[in-house]
Amino acid sequence: MNILFEHRLNELQVHKTKELSFPPHLHSEIEVLVVTKGSITIINEGEMRQIHKGQTAIIFPNSIHEYVKQSSGEMVMYIVNTQIVPEFHAIFSNKLPVDFVIDTQKIETQLTEINQYFLGFRQTKAEMLSRAYLHLFFALLLNNLPLHSRPKTQAPSTVVQVIRYVSEHFTEPLDLQSVASEVGCSVYTVSRIFSHKIKIGFRNYLNQMRVDYSRRLLRETDLKIVDIALECGFETLRSFNRAFTRTYNQTPSEYRQR
Amino acid sequence: MNILFEHRLNELQVHKTKELSFPPHLHSEIEVLVVTKGSITIINEGEMRQIHKGQTAIIFPNSIHEYVKQSSGEMVMYIVNTQIVPEFHAIFSNKLPVDFVIDTQKIETQLTEINQYFLGFRQTKAEMLSRAYLHLFFALLLNNLPLHSRPKTQAPSTVVQVIRYVSEHFTEPLDLQSVASEVGCSVYTVSRIFSHKIKIGFRNYLNQMRVDYSRRLLRETDLKIVDIALECGFETLRSFNRAFTRTYNQTPSEYRQR
Repeated sequence: MNILFEHRLNELQVHKTKELSFPPHLHSEIEVLVVTKGSITIINEGEMRQIHKGQTAIIFPNSIHEYVKQSSGEMVMYIVNTQIVPEFHAIFSNKLPVDFVIDTQKIETQLTEINQYFLGFRQTKAEMLSRAYLHLFFALLLNNLPLHSRPKTQAPSTVVQVIRYVSEHFTEPLDLQSVASEVGCSVYTVSRIFSHKIKIGFRNYLNQMRVDYSRRLLRETDLKIVDIALECGFETLRSFNRAFTRTYNQTPSEYRQR
Repeated sequence: MNILFEHRLNELQVHKTKELSFPPHLHSEIEVLVVTKGSITIINEGEMRQIHKGQTAIIFPNSIHEYVKQSSGEMVMYIVNTQIVPEFHAIFSNKLPVDFVIDTQKIETQLTEINQYFLGFRQTKAEMLSRAYLHLFFALLLNNLPLHSRPKTQAPSTVVQVIRYVSEHFTEPLDLQSVASEVGCSVYTVSRIFSHKIKIGFRNYLNQMRVDYSRRLLRETDLKIVDIALECGFETLRSFNRAFTRTYNQTPSEYRQR
């Protein structure tokens, strides 16, 4: 879907984050949330769960997930390309967790050490050590995670098709019409999916996906801001600046300089 | 060399040990000594070193190494088949450390945790987790270990040829004559190598190799003691019992029952 993504971005992102709010989306990376304070609320594949300190959520690749705004929690978020944990490639491709929330109090010491390691530097430089810590990270998590086989793919619902299509194509020029024709339904249906199911307007949704991706490019590349705007699917620098500032209360260049 | 070894024994041994004395020998496994108290003395590839608490020795595959008796040290000893750490296969096959003794004080917390994990159970059951901890163990060690390429193999000295031959064939019927004819020198030369270089008589050396191997079989298999005796190269149960008791101050069956 995206050339930059393949060639320039890190295969691992680790952030400490407080407030987390994001509409339903999916991606091929594994996402892990180690909650370190308070609680957060996630909806994963339609299942809403409140996740507390001492628990960890593990979102398997291509699962539709959503973060519901709550300001009481702190967490360390891992977004990991499955290719850098080849040990578990088969598991992440063929299995799904019976329950995506794990009690991690027993392994809290180890998780604290691993979090400290990854939060200790902005970019993943010491590859050998990072791979080893990731290997241990997932071994500790999967060791206590009952799994079942991924169900045979049924025809996905229109809602799932819409989310999947936009998640995979948000860097391209998109409008309700093009999404509708790709998914094979009416513009009216797509519009109602956004307002009634995803509960956020199409334009807003698209901007959220785009500004979130732009933050990675701002952090991890030296691309000019205007090029990032275009790369993320914005038509002008102005529309990028406006959307970014509305979401994060700072301009892209302020964010980059931080 | 040995069918049992291939099929029945663990690919990983971890022991806490106090006294360590062993004549020069080699094997295809990696051997790591994490010194946790006092100091021990090793000769590795002809280089004698005293290794203290806060240091770790890493013996690469097929290096001739020897433990000199000292009673003041405590250590955790890892003997690891390179096949269970595929991440570092190329390193262990093609490289050698510039210095085989590493200062490990900076990673003492992690080593303590890893030691505790492996000493916590007799046999390696939780494979997924054990492999991850081993991966981290070697990543931490190798991260601070300058390496150079293995030198092109020169013709090994007669001493090296003798040690190598006996290390690889000690479970077979061996005498000075058969070693001499395999290595291509006189019985007199082999005999002098043992008394002057290895500084232990041939019979004693052979018994040391055999009783050491018998301990693995006693621990890790359910073989009858008489079968272990034969498997290790002893001609009779009686000679096995005698050699074992002389070395370890207990009979093989006492050792197994502990």
